[in-house]
Amino acid sequence: MRSPSGFKFSGVNSGVRVKRKDLGLIYSEKPATAWGVFTRNKVKAAPVLYDMEIIKKGILQAILVNSGIANACTGKRGLEDVQREAEEVGKLLNIDSRLVAISSTGKIGPYLPMEKILKGAERCVSSLSEDGFLDFSDAILTTDTIRKIVYEEIEIGGKEIKILGISKGSGMINPDMATTLTFVTTDVNISLPMLKLALVRTTERTFNLITVDGDTSTNDTILVMANGFSENEKIKREDKNFEIFYNALYKVLKGLAYLVAKDGEGATKLVKIKIKGADSFSDAKRAGKTVANSLLVKTALYGSDPNWGRIMAALGYAGIVIDPEKVDIKIGEKIVENGKPTEFSREKIREYLGKKEVEIIIDLKIGVGEAEVLTTDLTHEYININTQYS
Amino acid sequence: MRSPSGFKFSGVNSGVRVKRKDLGLIYSEKPATAWGVFTRNKVKAAPVLYDMEIIKKGILQAILVNSGIANACTGKRGLEDVQREAEEVGKLLNIDSRLVAISSTGKIGPYLPMEKILKGAERCVSSLSEDGFLDFSDAILTTDTIRKIVYEEIEIGGKEIKILGISKGSGMINPDMATTLTFVTTDVNISLPMLKLALVRTTERTFNLITVDGDTSTNDTILVMANGFSENEKIKREDKNFEIFYNALYKVLKGLAYLVAKDGEGATKLVKIKIKGADSFSDAKRAGKTVANSLLVKTALYGSDPNWGRIMAALGYAGIVIDPEKVDIKIGEKIVENGKPTEFSREKIREYLGKKEVEIIIDLKIGVGEAEVLTTDLTHEYININTQYS
Repeated sequence: MRSPSGFKFSGVNSGVRVKRKDLGLIYSEKPATAWGVFTRNKVKAAPVLYDMEIIKKGILQAILVNSGIANACTGKRGLEDVQREAEEVGKLLNIDSRLVAISSTGKIGPYLPMEKILKGAERCVSSLSEDGFLDFSDAILTTDTIRKIVYEEIEIGGKEIKILGISKGSGMINPDMATTLTFVTTDVNISLPMLKLALVRTTERTFNLITVDGDTSTNDTILVMANGFSENEKIKREDKNFEIFYNALYKVLKGLAYLVAKDGEGATKLVKIKIKGADSFSDAKRAGKTVANSLLVKTALYGSDPNWGRIMAALGYAGIVIDPEKVDIKIGEKIVENGKPTEFSREKIREYLGKKEVEIIIDLKIGVGEAEVLTTDLTHEYININTQYS
Repeated sequence: MRSPSGFKFSGVNSGVRVKRKDLGLIYSEKPATAWGVFTRNKVKAAPVLYDMEIIKKGILQAILVNSGIANACTGKRGLEDVQREAEEVGKLLNIDSRLVAISSTGKIGPYLPMEKILKGAERCVSSLSEDGFLDFSDAILTTDTIRKIVYEEIEIGGKEIKILGISKGSGMINPDMATTLTFVTTDVNISLPMLKLALVRTTERTFNLITVDGDTSTNDTILVMANGFSENEKIKREDKNFEIFYNALYKVLKGLAYLVAKDGEGATKLVKIKIKGADSFSDAKRAGKTVANSLLVKTALYGSDPNWGRIMAALGYAGIVIDPEKVDIKIGEKIVENGKPTEFSREKIREYLGKKEVEIIIDLKIGVGEAEVLTTDLTHEYININTQYS
């Protein structure tokens, strides 16, 4: 795992949080082609509103991220604070402040303690290094219990290209949007339209297919920066080179989405819900997410209870094209065929559901739409984590 | 609390469940004007499919209900079983089997043990009595911890009219449909179109506004029978008499919905979410249900944590017309004004949230749409109840 060429990272404790890193910086030695995907929640945090505006021109050179406070529901003052953060980082790095994106994650409501943040930014700038990505990763985590970093290397036209993705997030996860914070840096040389295409398409097939609790955050953001340092011939169209890059980016985002889902708050197991034979991709996604978000399904999974009736009921209210008498459900082995239970052994399925990672395969036998949704079970520990937070 | 004139009830143990009543019967001495509202889940239990068919003519004389087995996902055999139940009850009561509705609640998947059910039906018929409604109520409960019976008396043109409503249900509750099982008997004299109007309108404003876990059952049913024994002048249009009846029916359904929500699985408190100032009733309902179904809101409520940020986030992804900077939220007192927190005392709000019944009032200040959604908190006990059921 290495830093893509031309990128530096850092992470420090600014004092927003007690005794742990809470402020991170990413910096590219030259302005990078960049794009972002943001929360579809109508209540958007100030940094999201800011980034959505500055990303329009498709160039970024730095990203400052704090954890502990979300800077959401902070009105005009929140937006002014973001503006000041970007200006300070621009000044410190001697770059245009409009090339600086800002992200925040944490509590909704409070204002940022600007003095701490700005002093912290100074230390972020002075401690930038190629190896700083672990510090950066630590600085952006909140209730996460594991780091989420995925790295891929590819070759295009003899040039080595590195892609490094870093995420945070383990609750309030139901994209249909960016979900959580994710920052991807790469030294690939690519045009803005092709970078957009790659990001939007991979996001839809990765982060937008995980769900922990069905809640959608005010701060979800994915930002990607491609600085061209690898000097490959610029990717400008959907050719073979684009495909190589697309597949690598997909692997990075898929890997990150997997880590985020795996780290779902209080989860005891990761659950892959594969929908096949849906009328469309959109139906498959909806079916998968509805099953994944059903509290009754989630609690049954926690108890390793092969309660297929709850899955059938969830499919029934998903609002998709369905013929109940065609549905097959496989949990380890086929337990429902044409809408009716097989003579499966409860004990065998219980044993399968006791694993750390399980798969539920649902075949609707209507069309060719497919989607794989990642989720977790709903546990006592989830409730412990979330009853006292604010 | 009395039985409406001309109605008899019973409840017995048929042997489907161990040592508790599990089969109930309602009988009207004459055919009654009747209507029903059913689950919108596309996976419908056999008795729902059957009732939807026979209710079309608007007449019923008896309803047989079993608990323990839902007769859902049982295909052709499930439908044949329902048919046999209706025929047997028709024979025993010496009435047309097409005047007999059937309901079931319980586990999805298994077939009904028809021998037990048919023998039980015989005992139901022989034990019918005017005072049998408590037995009937006990026979239809599942995970319920309290009986749900609401009674109203009104007078129309000097005639006394009685309305008796009986429900079951404490989980898998998210109507937008009928939710749970509810049976209303009344001796009012009313035309079918007016009965339909009253039922559909009151359901939309009562049962369709409660939600415990966002899950929507395969068996949800509300059936109302009006046998005309009170001999009031027939209600045929939306006049003052209709209004008197409508208001009483509303009280009965509202009371039952309240009892069902209050009995939400494992809940420690009942939460009323009042949405005001929405763009429409439909927006208000959607906003209220989204807040009510947010796991993060529900767990915060369990912990009596005034986490208004989670409420704002839920409003943001509800898919409604919203201006985040206009939103007011009141929990005991105003804690958010124009999208930003007031200087409220956390301790005071925590104390308020510690009560058995709490109110969250959200004013969107957009239009005049209003709705009141009933829900509960999400607790360790909910998880205990639902991890092992099938």
